[in-house]
Amino acid sequence: MHSFHVWAPKPKKVALQLGERVLPMQGPDAHGSWTLDVEEANWGDEYAFLLDDDQTAYPDPRSAFQPHGVHRPSALYNQKAFEWHDSLWQGPPLTGAVIYELHIGTFTEGGTFDAAIEKMAYLADLGITHIEIMPLAEYAGGRGWGYDGVALFAVNHCYGGPDGLKRLVDAAHKHSLAVILDCVYNHFGPVGNYTGKFGPYTTDKHHTPWGNAINFEDAGSDEVRHFFFDNALMWMRDYHIDGLRLDAIHEIIDRSAVHFLEQLSARVDNLSATVNRELVLIAESDLNNPQIVTPIEAKGFGMDAQWSDDFHHALFTVLHVEKDEAAKGYYNDFGDFESLAKSLKYMFVYDGKYSEYRQRKHGRPVDGLSAHHFVGFIQNHDQIGNRAIGDRLEHIVGVPRTKVALGIVLTAPFIPMLFQGEEFAASTPFLYFADHEDPEMAKMVAEGRKKEFAAFGWDENQIPNPEAPDTFLHSRLKWDEVTEGKHAEVHDWTRQLIHLRRSSICLNDGDRGHLEVRWDNAKRWLRMERELVVTLVNLGTEPVEFEITSEYRLALASDPAVRLENDCVVVPPDALAIVSAETE
Amino acid sequence: MHSFHVWAPKPKKVALQLGERVLPMQGPDAHGSWTLDVEEANWGDEYAFLLDDDQTAYPDPRSAFQPHGVHRPSALYNQKAFEWHDSLWQGPPLTGAVIYELHIGTFTEGGTFDAAIEKMAYLADLGITHIEIMPLAEYAGGRGWGYDGVALFAVNHCYGGPDGLKRLVDAAHKHSLAVILDCVYNHFGPVGNYTGKFGPYTTDKHHTPWGNAINFEDAGSDEVRHFFFDNALMWMRDYHIDGLRLDAIHEIIDRSAVHFLEQLSARVDNLSATVNRELVLIAESDLNNPQIVTPIEAKGFGMDAQWSDDFHHALFTVLHVEKDEAAKGYYNDFGDFESLAKSLKYMFVYDGKYSEYRQRKHGRPVDGLSAHHFVGFIQNHDQIGNRAIGDRLEHIVGVPRTKVALGIVLTAPFIPMLFQGEEFAASTPFLYFADHEDPEMAKMVAEGRKKEFAAFGWDENQIPNPEAPDTFLHSRLKWDEVTEGKHAEVHDWTRQLIHLRRSSICLNDGDRGHLEVRWDNAKRWLRMERELVVTLVNLGTEPVEFEITSEYRLALASDPAVRLENDCVVVPPDALAIVSAETE
Repeated sequence: MHSFHVWAPKPKKVALQLGERVLPMQGPDAHGSWTLDVEEANWGDEYAFLLDDDQTAYPDPRSAFQPHGVHRPSALYNQKAFEWHDSLWQGPPLTGAVIYELHIGTFTEGGTFDAAIEKMAYLADLGITHIEIMPLAEYAGGRGWGYDGVALFAVNHCYGGPDGLKRLVDAAHKHSLAVILDCVYNHFGPVGNYTGKFGPYTTDKHHTPWGNAINFEDAGSDEVRHFFFDNALMWMRDYHIDGLRLDAIHEIIDRSAVHFLEQLSARVDNLSATVNRELVLIAESDLNNPQIVTPIEAKGFGMDAQWSDDFHHALFTVLHVEKDEAAKGYYNDFGDFESLAKSLKYMFVYDGKYSEYRQRKHGRPVDGLSAHHFVGFIQNHDQIGNRAIGDRLEHIVGVPRTKVALGIVLTAPFIPMLFQGEEFAASTPFLYFADHEDPEMAKMVAEGRKKEFAAFGWDENQIPNPEAPDTFLHSRLKWDEVTEGKHAEVHDWTRQLIHLRRSSICLNDGDRGHLEVRWDNAKRWLRMERELVVTLVNLGTEPVEFEITSEYRLALASDPAVRLENDCVVVPPDALAIVSAETE
Repeated sequence: MHSFHVWAPKPKKVALQLGERVLPMQGPDAHGSWTLDVEEANWGDEYAFLLDDDQTAYPDPRSAFQPHGVHRPSALYNQKAFEWHDSLWQGPPLTGAVIYELHIGTFTEGGTFDAAIEKMAYLADLGITHIEIMPLAEYAGGRGWGYDGVALFAVNHCYGGPDGLKRLVDAAHKHSLAVILDCVYNHFGPVGNYTGKFGPYTTDKHHTPWGNAINFEDAGSDEVRHFFFDNALMWMRDYHIDGLRLDAIHEIIDRSAVHFLEQLSARVDNLSATVNRELVLIAESDLNNPQIVTPIEAKGFGMDAQWSDDFHHALFTVLHVEKDEAAKGYYNDFGDFESLAKSLKYMFVYDGKYSEYRQRKHGRPVDGLSAHHFVGFIQNHDQIGNRAIGDRLEHIVGVPRTKVALGIVLTAPFIPMLFQGEEFAASTPFLYFADHEDPEMAKMVAEGRKKEFAAFGWDENQIPNPEAPDTFLHSRLKWDEVTEGKHAEVHDWTRQLIHLRRSSICLNDGDRGHLEVRWDNAKRWLRMERELVVTLVNLGTEPVEFEITSEYRLALASDPAVRLENDCVVVPPDALAIVSAETE
């Protein structure tokens, strides 16, 4: 027996199509829900819904498995059948995390969950504590970043489906790796989204870059909110996921007295208490609003952390200056060591000050919050993949500056995050790729991408076609590189940095009152003091002598030419040194 | 010499038209502002702006005076010339206020500021502490409620222009009456709004019931915010206004880290400290979100108070039940004594519970806030004027229940508010009226109104035409009524209630912990205890015996049949009694 259930306040009648059978559903109840108990229904059976007199059978908006993609029927999936091996799993705290972002399709040659499992031991050895997986919800086509998901409860069948994900999470936990999943709660993808046939999932009161906003505040929004709550809780409860990264929460537009994010945060906290392990929410936010990561009790939204884009931009712009003015975009708001220092100490560079890029004042100060509410990185899927040719930092600035950047990221007060392959300066790009079966749509996406970068002065022929299979394949990591030449050098450096961080009390201190940054914009040096550990950075053209007292020893240096002298450390150009007075 | 200044980032060139002269302006500066110093310019001179090669001369978006209406040139107005007589004015605190809402055009026969001045002594005698004036910003046409203002800095010339308003405020202060002005910061009226020619005053990212939202968060929004800040501060600084009532703040849509309302509130606080008198902000909010009236230091928006619609609906629906189901609308969410009791004790009836009308859960609990953050009323311009025929409470439920309603409003923990004429149960309606010169627009408004109420089962011919001058004229109060028959009875009752309230410590106690409400939904009685003052309400069909202890005396009774017996007060049907143990 299986109880079928669907929220569908729009149609006047709903029928279940189960294999060859068509069975009228009972409903609607007061809130527009329809139900049907079917005796002869088995796990794996395929089903869909018929709405009014529409001849198309639509998949379940809450389908747990779409074995044939987004347009075809859903399949009954038994969440309880998987045999877990992580019953003792508690998970490392987010405050001490080193996160590793990865995309299942390009992380390995195989491009599946099972292929990714092979790399868990490697990541654990590197010192990673949390992997963060780019979105897995079923989207249209066989290749994509995942941000255009439409069947949000279904694990992408191309990667190995629901059981595949469970095998990966189980394996990650076996290696003491927590798993964060990237979830998109601000829009549905443009292809294969049938939710609008069922109910008011969107509202025309607010427009996002992807069209009408998700309906978090209008009639029927209770059910829409529950759709997303249940989605979030499903990952954590049924898939043993340890946290979610919420995509672009500034496009979750909600005037309700209780914001969706606050309510989500409270529900995740409740589940955390029930399952007896830490569950976290990490927001991507373009608002520079500390309320996002303020605890609910202090009238915040209760997110555990948010991405720190200001730090990325501040660091990137001192490592590299785009030649073309037009290419700068938001980088125009950054570019000096003062901004970098401010991002390290105060998190938001834009904390109320005027942004040329935004043509308005932006943000508010982060008062009284630990730096552990912020995730810092110099690379991620967007910062690489949204570049015209998907080039990584090392391709742009070379090995020495890449090592400097890693040194800053991994000794900064933020929770550090790396992007797959960053740890060995992978030669492969991370390109924007998609796979739209509809040739018109595919052409539109490809042309759109070309035009976007033509505006920045690029020759259209240089822009890889997102729809070409090669664009996807070229983005796959080449794992042989890890042990070769400069890749091995960067890998070794990254590994040392992570191990230094994880063993240091000072580097894990989120109290921003304990952090001092000094810098010289003309000579291009920066000194970040985290009590007993000091990071010394020279991005100038001359060696810099940093004064230190005698209790400090040289912990790590990105360049063998770094020298510890009597009262100072001499750091050559494009190098970084870390000195420590912590007892080992 | 006069310095002309206009923010106009849209046009490539701007010229000043001053009388017959056309003078190119200097600019734009980095933010799109244009300036020009003109030697020969005098107060009263008329001017406008020419944008690019557009042949139309547009009035100044910040014009202080539009002597010929919204479409014609602006006039230079000297804010400093008026001779004030209120230098010792401090103003009564909002916490002890009794507010009186009025509409200048219909408050008196004359329909002007000067005519209104004649009534200030009357209002002071009634016991009013604050008058609240419906919007005064220049709008298109000669008659209107004022919510479609377009020249937001210009006092409507039909009412007497800027100097007229100053005379009224000066006179009000002379009678110890504070003045609150209704301001509309959520949209511009549909006719005569030329701001869009100058700059990005609106954004298409959010839609309100009136079209695109005001741009509080997008490029150029700093200047738009300042436009409204300066407007608010102008009223308080230059016109000696004591507070603003902000229309429908739920349509001020702002995702910025610092919300417009919070920033406005902080600026008003600063001005208050400077001018050394209390300046207040009162919001109309449909959000049931206590954050609106929470102090900034506690992460709120810092509004001093907000209107309490839930109380209105809860009270109205126990006084009267609309016969037609369709006519109920939001009244469907109310209708029992439990809701009324909840609104009295907890302010929001919808504090997170499901609303049938909204088809979603609504609101959040008001925790730890004084009742003085809420304004309570049984009548206001909307609750009368948005009824099909503008009928007042007494026209619907008769004198006894009107007196009961007044008794509840004026002993409730909220700041009470009356609407013009409510104190004497005026015979005149308050209708929806407008005056659109454009016949197409006028027809659209009239037809729209008819259709709106036809949907509620009204005969179209019964609906007064908003555009007809008579609709406006019929809404004028007939002041002779005050001393006549039932009007005099209600006036006397209101005056006694206000004087009782103003002299009672218990009735001015905002601490909701000191308030107890009991009720019986079947017998239709309610007992509200405010420590030493108790309000006893009987809306049932039989007399009710309310037990009281011997220290209580009968303070006021709406019906002479109310009897104080040994251990109880007997209240006949449709009557209210107030007993008190306060020392007089």
